[in-house]
Amino acid sequence: MAHSPAYSYDAGVFRKRLEQDAEFTTRAMETLLPIDEGPEGQLMDAVRYAALLGGKRVRPYLTLHTAALFNVDPKCALRVAAAVEMVHCYSLVHDDLPAMDDDDLRRGKPTCHVQFDEATAILAGDALLTRAFEVLSEEGTHQDAMVRVALVKELAKSAGAFGMVGGQMLDLVAHQHDLDMSEVARLQRMKTGGLINYACMSGGILGKASDSAMHKLHGFAHDLGLAFQIVDDLLDATGNEEELGKRTNKDAGQGKATFVSLMGIDQARDQAARLRDQAIDQLNVFEEKADPLRDMAHFVVNRVS
Amino acid sequence: MAHSPAYSYDAGVFRKRLEQDAEFTTRAMETLLPIDEGPEGQLMDAVRYAALLGGKRVRPYLTLHTAALFNVDPKCALRVAAAVEMVHCYSLVHDDLPAMDDDDLRRGKPTCHVQFDEATAILAGDALLTRAFEVLSEEGTHQDAMVRVALVKELAKSAGAFGMVGGQMLDLVAHQHDLDMSEVARLQRMKTGGLINYACMSGGILGKASDSAMHKLHGFAHDLGLAFQIVDDLLDATGNEEELGKRTNKDAGQGKATFVSLMGIDQARDQAARLRDQAIDQLNVFEEKADPLRDMAHFVVNRVS
Repeated sequence: MAHSPAYSYDAGVFRKRLEQDAEFTTRAMETLLPIDEGPEGQLMDAVRYAALLGGKRVRPYLTLHTAALFNVDPKCALRVAAAVEMVHCYSLVHDDLPAMDDDDLRRGKPTCHVQFDEATAILAGDALLTRAFEVLSEEGTHQDAMVRVALVKELAKSAGAFGMVGGQMLDLVAHQHDLDMSEVARLQRMKTGGLINYACMSGGILGKASDSAMHKLHGFAHDLGLAFQIVDDLLDATGNEEELGKRTNKDAGQGKATFVSLMGIDQARDQAARLRDQAIDQLNVFEEKADPLRDMAHFVVNRVS
Repeated sequence: MAHSPAYSYDAGVFRKRLEQDAEFTTRAMETLLPIDEGPEGQLMDAVRYAALLGGKRVRPYLTLHTAALFNVDPKCALRVAAAVEMVHCYSLVHDDLPAMDDDDLRRGKPTCHVQFDEATAILAGDALLTRAFEVLSEEGTHQDAMVRVALVKELAKSAGAFGMVGGQMLDLVAHQHDLDMSEVARLQRMKTGGLINYACMSGGILGKASDSAMHKLHGFAHDLGLAFQIVDDLLDATGNEEELGKRTNKDAGQGKATFVSLMGIDQARDQAARLRDQAIDQLNVFEEKADPLRDMAHFVVNRVS
């Protein structure tokens, strides 16, 4: 096999590390998203509700452990991890709105617009997105302004109209088009792949990684992101609503083309496993330092929620 | 009087310059917001609808003419002006949504969610905000990364939860509170003042202005922004719906405290004129180079739409 000879995946050990890193990220976000005592305070209440309650924090984990490959100061990496998660949370808040996916359950709790109201949820998403860029631009994120501005630029590219936001638009109009496999893959690359890719690249940007190292990170992120989405589709088709903390079987109900509807369950499972191995192959150059990233590839494919 | 002795306001000359600068800004935005030929293309259609059709472009004008005080390359200033206007347009699109102010007319045309649909309008706003940060972070905006990252940071501060977005939240809950004059002023500083202030400061940031020059710009922006809002309230109370291109008398209809409801029409007019003179006083140090900004102060107070 292509990874370090001593490596083996221990789900229990990984789970513990993931939870610990999630806790670090949540605490960092809590500091970066302060309570507001003014009459407009419900905005920050909604922001904190959307950002601080739960979530596996997969993207922050990717930022933290790609940054660790290049010995980046963990305090800096944690700020970027928090910013990435803010953008992820903003996208969930807006995607859940009645005019969009109209979801009332997220991570086992009422979605932001159900807990507060639609106007507050729209503004909370706006505030999270804006704060993410602010955090990246602040000096604590990296002493070198070139690094900070590169972090801003790549995030905007990943999250914007030709990335995540465009992917959500594509998802909304997907039922009008009969998407084939390459179009479903494009949708995934834009909607979920962009931010997963950014999470991995941000560690390299922080660490001023070489072009060839960035290339490897990009390859890893690409395969991981695709595997992640295939498993998401599998869970939607076969998963347990209670475990997932969100509604299942939505895609089939909406007649939406997914990796599962196009490939079938067995082939989708095989494909996810192949992508996991391929993703892990990209990490060889980083030797055992990349073991936490190898773990994530296993987790993404094995997860049941 | 405090401004340059030779100065006098010529409304016709100013109008021409404002329109010409608006045209430059619109053309720059058009290049920066390209058409998307993909199945998700209606997103960029909505973005362009919201950003390119009309608008006085007051904020871009402020960026362009504060930048000119410091001999900034007009190409750089124009990119920043476009980014500021993208943020302004995003805020209008989201504020007009049914869950927010529920407006169907803007600049004499159907609002974005009426022309397209709510989901597309939400995403178009998100895309505009994200693109603004991307434009600021790109090398064409300024060769010095310190300048670019400062532009990002200050924009995020002005536009975020403790600036524009917080101001919109405060506006939405204002009817639950009986706002007094200082609270109405705080709402204005957050909701409209922040971006007007940023537009003025961005010229100084681009030009690496001294602290004392920045202080003067800040004073000018503060007084101008307040005058702008008072006149907005006057126009809402007394203006012509057709000329304004949006619904009027909304504030009184909603029982909302405004500068006009708290001061009365005559005192509000006096106050706006006083603020105009005070704003112009702040510009003395820039001598005749600041005449275009003096013009704007006159325009803001004299305008009928």
